[in-house]
Amino acid sequence: MTADQSVSLQSQVVFNSDGLVPVIAQQYDTGEVLMLAWMNSEALRRTIDTGRATYWSRSRGEYWRKGDTSGHTQSVRAVRLDCDGDALLLEVDQVGPACHNGLRSCFDTLVVQLTPSPSQQAGGHK
Amino acid sequence: MTADQSVSLQSQVVFNSDGLVPVIAQQYDTGEVLMLAWMNSEALRRTIDTGRATYWSRSRGEYWRKGDTSGHTQSVRAVRLDCDGDALLLEVDQVGPACHNGLRSCFDTLVVQLTPSPSQQAGGHK
Repeated sequence: MTADQSVSLQSQVVFNSDGLVPVIAQQYDTGEVLMLAWMNSEALRRTIDTGRATYWSRSRGEYWRKGDTSGHTQSVRAVRLDCDGDALLLEVDQVGPACHNGLRSCFDTLVVQLTPSPSQQAGGHK
Repeated sequence: MTADQSVSLQSQVVFNSDGLVPVIAQQYDTGEVLMLAWMNSEALRRTIDTGRATYWSRSRGEYWRKGDTSGHTQSVRAVRLDCDGDALLLEVDQVGPACHNGLRSCFDTLVVQLTPSPSQQAGGHK
């Protein structure tokens, strides 16, 4: 990554009225979605500068470098900005569980399977 | 899915002060993260009831059933709620590009690769 690329990315992020942007963390090789958290401009700068995912904790009102307490760090391989500029996707290498409850993904807690309708099962939705 | 599961999921979602929750759409078989959008309670109910991803457009202030205009529908296989209840992950079957600009993923627009530091390359981050 060049400094120019970093500046370009950061200048294109559309932060919300609280100065935050939602960030998805995805395991870079398996594709598993691990968590969704939030960054402000400074958290994004620290993430890009250090390669360690750093978020803004809305509940605690402080920066939160993933893994500093738990050891479950996220090394960032790539940062992707969406087409509207208002969401980020991090490709990370997650050490251990991403979730504070000890599960690999924060999305492993509650899963509802939907049953395809007959038309969907027959490929009718395509 | 049973009606009980649906009610349980919907009752556990923590909507923000605007009544919205961020929703990640992921291709169910490849793991590709396609987009991030928003739902209110009614959009979530419609999504679960119909199996078609239905969002709330913040810019247009209206419901937006993915694919109604473009034909690029999202059939929902599963709905996952995160540990804090304030983010959803949909496992979908995306027809065609998910992004309005014609790209498969909304996160294909701008990608910044980060160069691992020497300690990371040596596995020092683990």
